[in-house]
Amino acid sequence: MSLPETFISCDWGTSNFRLRVIHTDTLSVIKEYSSSQGVKEVYQNYTDQDQLDKSSYYAKFLEEKLMSIVDLNQPHIVVASGMVSSSMGMYELDYTSTPFSAEGNDILSKRISISNNVQMLITSGVKQGDDVMRGEEVQALGLAKYLQDVDKGVLLLPGTHSKHLQFEANIFHQFDTFMTGEMFDMLTKHSILSNSVKKGPFDENNRSAFKEGVRKAVAEGLSKNLFKVRAKALLDNRDSTESFYYLSGLLIGDELSYLKEKQDKVCIAASGMLNQLYQLALAEVIEDKDRLVFFKEDILEKALLIGQKKILEKQYECV
Amino acid sequence: MSLPETFISCDWGTSNFRLRVIHTDTLSVIKEYSSSQGVKEVYQNYTDQDQLDKSSYYAKFLEEKLMSIVDLNQPHIVVASGMVSSSMGMYELDYTSTPFSAEGNDILSKRISISNNVQMLITSGVKQGDDVMRGEEVQALGLAKYLQDVDKGVLLLPGTHSKHLQFEANIFHQFDTFMTGEMFDMLTKHSILSNSVKKGPFDENNRSAFKEGVRKAVAEGLSKNLFKVRAKALLDNRDSTESFYYLSGLLIGDELSYLKEKQDKVCIAASGMLNQLYQLALAEVIEDKDRLVFFKEDILEKALLIGQKKILEKQYECV
Repeated sequence: MSLPETFISCDWGTSNFRLRVIHTDTLSVIKEYSSSQGVKEVYQNYTDQDQLDKSSYYAKFLEEKLMSIVDLNQPHIVVASGMVSSSMGMYELDYTSTPFSAEGNDILSKRISISNNVQMLITSGVKQGDDVMRGEEVQALGLAKYLQDVDKGVLLLPGTHSKHLQFEANIFHQFDTFMTGEMFDMLTKHSILSNSVKKGPFDENNRSAFKEGVRKAVAEGLSKNLFKVRAKALLDNRDSTESFYYLSGLLIGDELSYLKEKQDKVCIAASGMLNQLYQLALAEVIEDKDRLVFFKEDILEKALLIGQKKILEKQYECV
Repeated sequence: MSLPETFISCDWGTSNFRLRVIHTDTLSVIKEYSSSQGVKEVYQNYTDQDQLDKSSYYAKFLEEKLMSIVDLNQPHIVVASGMVSSSMGMYELDYTSTPFSAEGNDILSKRISISNNVQMLITSGVKQGDDVMRGEEVQALGLAKYLQDVDKGVLLLPGTHSKHLQFEANIFHQFDTFMTGEMFDMLTKHSILSNSVKKGPFDENNRSAFKEGVRKAVAEGLSKNLFKVRAKALLDNRDSTESFYYLSGLLIGDELSYLKEKQDKVCIAASGMLNQLYQLALAEVIEDKDRLVFFKEDILEKALLIGQKKILEKQYECV
C-alpha cells in the first residue's frame, strides 16, 4: 500500500502541542497549528469534567484543532509522538526497550480511530533499566540518516531534559538523561542565586563568562562551584548577565564533562540559543575537533518529520 | 575588665531569629525567644515603612523581643552573628578574609548602642576570593576547641548551604560552600522529580536507598543520576519515600565525593536528621574510619555560644 500524499505530524509534549500538515514526499510543511496546550494542561481539563472518557476527551480536543488546518470530510492520518503516549496522554503505550534500530522497527505504535476520516498513529517511548524518554527517540530515528557516516558515537539532544544517546552501526543501544535545562530554570528562578543572575544579550563578555563556567565545571565539578556564582556577585560585583551565562556554562559543562575522556564522536542537534551554547561548550570540553559533528540548525526540525515518516512507512509496510 | 555574668546570644539568619540569655561562665541557657523573623522578613517590613531609618528600625524590633526575656532597666550585651551583618541586616560589616584564627582575633565586630542599657556586638562574615559565609565562622570558632587534637583536616557544617572549612594548627585557611540542602528542597518541590518523592520515616529500607544514592553519586556523579530517580519510580514503581532518601543520598554523596581521595581527617558537626544522614554518608564515602571525627549532637548547639563568647572576650580585652 502506498503512503498517503500528506500526513499530519503531531508533536505533543508536556507543555506544547503542535500539528503540521506535511507533504509526505518532500516533508515540506503545508499548514501549521501550535499552542501551549500540552498533555499536562489537557489532562488537567479532562479530570475537571466527567462527561467524556479519556480517549474521547482527547479525540474531541484533537478534532477541534485539526478542523482549523484540514478539511475533515477528507481522510487523514496523524502521526503523534511525545508525552501523548504517557499515562497522562491520550493513550498509554508501554516503552520500547533499548537497544532500538535507527530504522524504526522497534518503536511500538498504536493505531486509533479518531473519527471515520481521521486515523492516528501514537508512538511509544523508550526505556532502559534506569532511564526513560518519550519523543526524542523519534527525533533520533530522523537524525540517523545523518549519522550513517559516523558509525559510532553519542548523539546529544539538548533541552530541558537533555538526552545523550549512544549509537553504533545504526543501533541506539544506551542513553542518559541530564536535567540541565530544568536545573538552570530552577536555579535562576527559585534559588538564592536568582538575585545574582539576569538574562541578557549574549555579547562577547558573556561569551567569555560562559566559557569560563564550562572550564570550571569540567575541572572541578558543579557542586563546589554553584554557590560561587553568588559569592562572585557579592565580592566582585560581577555583572548579573555575565553571572547568568557563567551559571549556564557551569551546568552545560557539567553535563558534557564525562565526554572529555572518551574517544567517541560527539554529534549534536539543537536549534537557536541552545545550539550556540552547546557548540561553544563542546569546543571547550573536547580538544580533538575531529570528534565533533555539529548538525545544522534546521536538521533537528526536520528530524522529527523524518522519524515520523519512518513510523508511518512501517505501518504501511505491514498493511 | 571582667566579662558580664550573662550575655545575650543572638542568632539572626535569613529566615530565623533567636535570642538566648546565656550564663557567661557555664554557657547554660537561662531564657530563650525564637521566631521565623529572619533578616529577610524584617528587611521587607523595614522597606514597607518610612518612619525609621534601618538601624533604628532593627533596634526597635530587637528591643521589643528583648523585653520578653530580660529586664531592660538592667544593662545587657547582645552578641549577634549571622545575616544580621549583611546588606539586608541591621548594620553591614565587610567580610574578614581567610585565613582566620580559631582564637577569634580576625573576626571583625562592631559595637552598637541599642539604648542606654543595651549594647550590641555584631560580627562580620568571612570571605575568600570566590566564596562567602556569615554565621558559620562563629560556629567554627566554637568548634575549634574540639579540633585541637586533630591538627589538620576539614570541618563540615551541613545545612541549606553546607560549609567545608579546611583547617590546620588552629587556623581556618580555606572553605567551600555546597548548596546541597537548597538543591534538595528545590528538586523535591519544584522539579519533575517532585512527583516521585515523598518524605517519610527513615526506616531500614530507606536507609539502604540512601546509602545506594551516596554510592551512586560517588561512583558516577550527580548529573547522570538525577533523572533516574524519576525513571526508577516509573519503571520499577519504586516507593516514593525510598526515592526521597535515594535522592538525598545522591546529593549528599555528591557533596562528599571529593573527600574520598584526600588523606585529611574529616570532622563533622550537625544535629538531628542531618547528623544521621551525613554520618551514614561519610561512612560510605571514606574507607579509613580513622579519618572520621563525629561530634556529638549537642556540640554544634554549644559551638555558637563558645564562638560568641570568644568574640565577647576579645572585646573586653580591648577595653
